[in-house]
Amino acid sequence: MIRQDGNTVRTERTRRRILDESLKLFNDQGEDAVTTADIAGSLGISPGNLYYHFRNKDQIVAELFGRLEARLDIDPRVGPDVAQSIEDLWFYLHLMLEAIWDFRFFYRNLHGLARRDRRLRDRFNRIASRKLAAVEALCEALAGQGALAASREEIRALARNVLLVATYWLDFQSLRPGRERSAGLGQGAYQVMALVAPYLVGGARAHLERLGRSYVE
Amino acid sequence: MIRQDGNTVRTERTRRRILDESLKLFNDQGEDAVTTADIAGSLGISPGNLYYHFRNKDQIVAELFGRLEARLDIDPRVGPDVAQSIEDLWFYLHLMLEAIWDFRFFYRNLHGLARRDRRLRDRFNRIASRKLAAVEALCEALAGQGALAASREEIRALARNVLLVATYWLDFQSLRPGRERSAGLGQGAYQVMALVAPYLVGGARAHLERLGRSYVE
Repeated sequence: MIRQDGNTVRTERTRRRILDESLKLFNDQGEDAVTTADIAGSLGISPGNLYYHFRNKDQIVAELFGRLEARLDIDPRVGPDVAQSIEDLWFYLHLMLEAIWDFRFFYRNLHGLARRDRRLRDRFNRIASRKLAAVEALCEALAGQGALAASREEIRALARNVLLVATYWLDFQSLRPGRERSAGLGQGAYQVMALVAPYLVGGARAHLERLGRSYVE
Repeated sequence: MIRQDGNTVRTERTRRRILDESLKLFNDQGEDAVTTADIAGSLGISPGNLYYHFRNKDQIVAELFGRLEARLDIDPRVGPDVAQSIEDLWFYLHLMLEAIWDFRFFYRNLHGLARRDRRLRDRFNRIASRKLAAVEALCEALAGQGALAASREEIRALARNVLLVATYWLDFQSLRPGRERSAGLGQGAYQVMALVAPYLVGGARAHLERLGRSYVE
């Protein structure tokens, strides 16, 4: 057991408050419009206190990216029961889209951030590569169970489109007029499932259509 | 016939040079990293001369957006010959992706630009709505010819995914390591066609697969 004195606890709490507030401000105003002085001011702490915890804004962004990585650090599973796998996939997509929404400032300025911080770009690409491989493995597993009919090349193209739609759906929706947050998450999952649907066969496709109906009615 | 004196011609030429140079710099460095002073400096003209033509950078961006609109101002067609329609669609996608590539600075900072300029956001949305309607109409027409089998709701979801993949494909690719520009355009068209492919039936699907083979081999 690690014992922490009052100072350590206070330090950790301030650090966490800075990250929470930064995330909120970045999401609301865009990361490039927010300075460390804005963050300190919004928390009612001195800039010096903020610099004691983070040497600059890039360090805050990098730590927030670590939080996003932790949220995305889960892969879709395929079990022996196809209907269950389809439901799990639906739930999994909601989890992923929720994480993307909670850290939407990254997705709204991917290029600017990647240009500024090479390591952030590498970390983004590691996530992308891993998700691509996970979606391909999932489709191959469904194909092995006779629930999905697609060639190896079709599965590769499908996985790329799944990743693209999942990554950018919420970004695109927030540019469109009159869209609500809650609709965005469910519709995003629906749009991704719509990519997979035409390759599903028999009971698996019928099951997906039943699950999806609530989003289109 | 409109007669133009030497001054008018020179003015028009300078104006065009400013727009061309701005586009190049925005694409290379990101629009937010380029100032009007950078543009003037890069052209070897005085800032005053630039301001004579454009009162600020937003006006340059808005005019460049007008150029992009003109490039995108064409809709896909469906003729009586299904095979020809599929080939036309392939060619059409190349044209659209080429326009997106040529004006990629917009797509790399859609949120920042839309936030700064409400009218630009509205113009982007008018294009998006029009393209959505065009893809839906195209799919309905193919369905009417018996070349595509999809429900009305499947076509709506498909059109949204077509728009999303076409809009963001090049953006996503340019974040990925080791991608080349030339591969990006062809592969982007391939990825969009891969969305439509599973809904095509009979000869239309076989024809698309033949066309697509060059991109995967």
